[in-house]
Amino acid sequence: MDSNILNNLQLTKVAVSKIDTFDFENVKFGAKFTDHMLTCAYKNGEWGALEIKPYAPITLDPSARVFHYGQAIFEGMKAYKQDNNDIWLFRPDENFHRFNKSAIRLAMPTIDETRFIGGLKELIKVEKEWVRKGLGNSLYIRPFMIATESGVIASPSSEFLFCILLSPAKSYYSGKIKVQIADYYSRAANGGIGAAKAAGNYSAQFYPTKLAQEAGYNQVIWTDSTHTHLEESGTMNVFFRINDTLYTAPTSDRILDGVTRKSLIALAEHLGYQVKIEPVKVEAIIQAAKEGSLKEIFGAGTAAVVNQIEGFAYKDDYYELPNIADEDAYALQLKNALTKLQNKLTDDPFNWTVKI
Amino acid sequence: MDSNILNNLQLTKVAVSKIDTFDFENVKFGAKFTDHMLTCAYKNGEWGALEIKPYAPITLDPSARVFHYGQAIFEGMKAYKQDNNDIWLFRPDENFHRFNKSAIRLAMPTIDETRFIGGLKELIKVEKEWVRKGLGNSLYIRPFMIATESGVIASPSSEFLFCILLSPAKSYYSGKIKVQIADYYSRAANGGIGAAKAAGNYSAQFYPTKLAQEAGYNQVIWTDSTHTHLEESGTMNVFFRINDTLYTAPTSDRILDGVTRKSLIALAEHLGYQVKIEPVKVEAIIQAAKEGSLKEIFGAGTAAVVNQIEGFAYKDDYYELPNIADEDAYALQLKNALTKLQNKLTDDPFNWTVKI
Repeated sequence: MDSNILNNLQLTKVAVSKIDTFDFENVKFGAKFTDHMLTCAYKNGEWGALEIKPYAPITLDPSARVFHYGQAIFEGMKAYKQDNNDIWLFRPDENFHRFNKSAIRLAMPTIDETRFIGGLKELIKVEKEWVRKGLGNSLYIRPFMIATESGVIASPSSEFLFCILLSPAKSYYSGKIKVQIADYYSRAANGGIGAAKAAGNYSAQFYPTKLAQEAGYNQVIWTDSTHTHLEESGTMNVFFRINDTLYTAPTSDRILDGVTRKSLIALAEHLGYQVKIEPVKVEAIIQAAKEGSLKEIFGAGTAAVVNQIEGFAYKDDYYELPNIADEDAYALQLKNALTKLQNKLTDDPFNWTVKI
Repeated sequence: MDSNILNNLQLTKVAVSKIDTFDFENVKFGAKFTDHMLTCAYKNGEWGALEIKPYAPITLDPSARVFHYGQAIFEGMKAYKQDNNDIWLFRPDENFHRFNKSAIRLAMPTIDETRFIGGLKELIKVEKEWVRKGLGNSLYIRPFMIATESGVIASPSSEFLFCILLSPAKSYYSGKIKVQIADYYSRAANGGIGAAKAAGNYSAQFYPTKLAQEAGYNQVIWTDSTHTHLEESGTMNVFFRINDTLYTAPTSDRILDGVTRKSLIALAEHLGYQVKIEPVKVEAIIQAAKEGSLKEIFGAGTAAVVNQIEGFAYKDDYYELPNIADEDAYALQLKNALTKLQNKLTDDPFNWTVKI
């Protein structure tokens, strides 16, 4: 950490906090934000001063690159408050490194750890009242970077804005979901940007997901370019349990290197589960579903932690998964173990939690 | 055209035009804009009133969908002024229809012809002094649509802004360029958004293009998912001339249905050239280069019309194209025929030009 950068941080506080009017019991994910945000501008080849200031609109020239060429990346992470009021981040170094990997793939500047993690910590200190105690409560953190240079010229911007927004979050039981395996549309190309948290990856999914929803499914399980391997579920990584072994695809240039994914793999191994990281064939999963050896499928990501799947459609057939008891579900055991660790209710043998 | 929409157009003019300070002789493509822009907001399931107002920044919530999920599309087109001061658009219906195809693929609302083409015509009437006469002068038109709803929720926005910017343009001779055939990176996935003019397609190219430039090439020729077929050159469609036959790939969900591409195909056939629209194999082009039958490669797009290529790299080898005289180059003959037609200096047997 470069203490000069943090010493020069410009802090402008709101006159009146809106926290007293915020309904922490009825929170819609990602919809509302705290009083302040962190910003930092990149210009003339370097990052400027960090600013923490009242949450406010961004004003850009209508020809700004982000509007025309989608040069934008983001991260998703969470903070948790312990009963003693300590606030903890979960593996922030993972998000920091992935943010810079995304930046490189999108021809954007990388950012230093002081501005990303140091700036985030300062922002959360200012907003500490917005982090609520109790399992299930968290503060969702959205760092992002956009290309701000004006000009409708299809080449990388030379000016950028880095920004962090904070949004109180509450875990909720969304129920098990039904998914459709992609056999026409794709999320990512070989040699494309699928492994980056690039803005354009998400809007590319909206239409195929809408079609799946119109057909009665909640999400799409994305496949590779030949539609023969299962890769991601919606905006999450995906796990398959066959008998007592968990399978998930190796990361690649099409698959996001998810922090929840890699944490669940480590936790599962720690809990003594058999985990295999290998390509997962559509036909193998269908065969396992037919034989009854396919016990569970679940998505894994920061927002929902895990998302249990009750069945999947592939072409004209629908395959229902067995109704497994909660206490026997790997998905819920792993979710429970991970959220307890994140909330400091259990030991952290991996040293994943970082105190603010 | 719905005359009510045009009658309700809200026009706010600038107090003082900046046209007298604009250097029309030294124009950088896409860098500067005219006095006014057209905007139209989509909310509650419908498009609102058209507005023509002074060119000004756009102000959005920092959680607006366009910043996080790249839900944004655009078009590129041009207007030309005849010596008698008539102003002409070139095939605006093609851009209008493609804009709506892009909108559907990105889960955005389609827009009506009155707002798109009718609104554009009204804007150009207001800005008619900015369209300069003379072959080589044009007004570049940039319609675009961005997702404006706030909330970091990875689902389609319900609010959008449609906008048209105008930028005076001048043709220039950029020289022939050297290109590199992609053998690792990709521009688009099968079943992806490559055929849409989606913002995210462009930023995905920036990094591989930068690598190609660092290796001494100007652009990348994009290939399919197996890197065996040639599909696009940079942000343009691509043509290959082998002996006296022009080849270009058929459009697909990876390849943009370019207006310049389809116009050049029609013009080439009209001029009596042999044109074949079929998949173009990398190995066939290399074989033709070795045999000396590969005469020309050129990109085709609205901004530069055609972009002649002097040679290409594939893996470790570089292939130089023969030095063909300007008067024998299909690229220049087609460019000449198309720009004369666009500028009303020749007949328009296709009825492509539309008077404002």
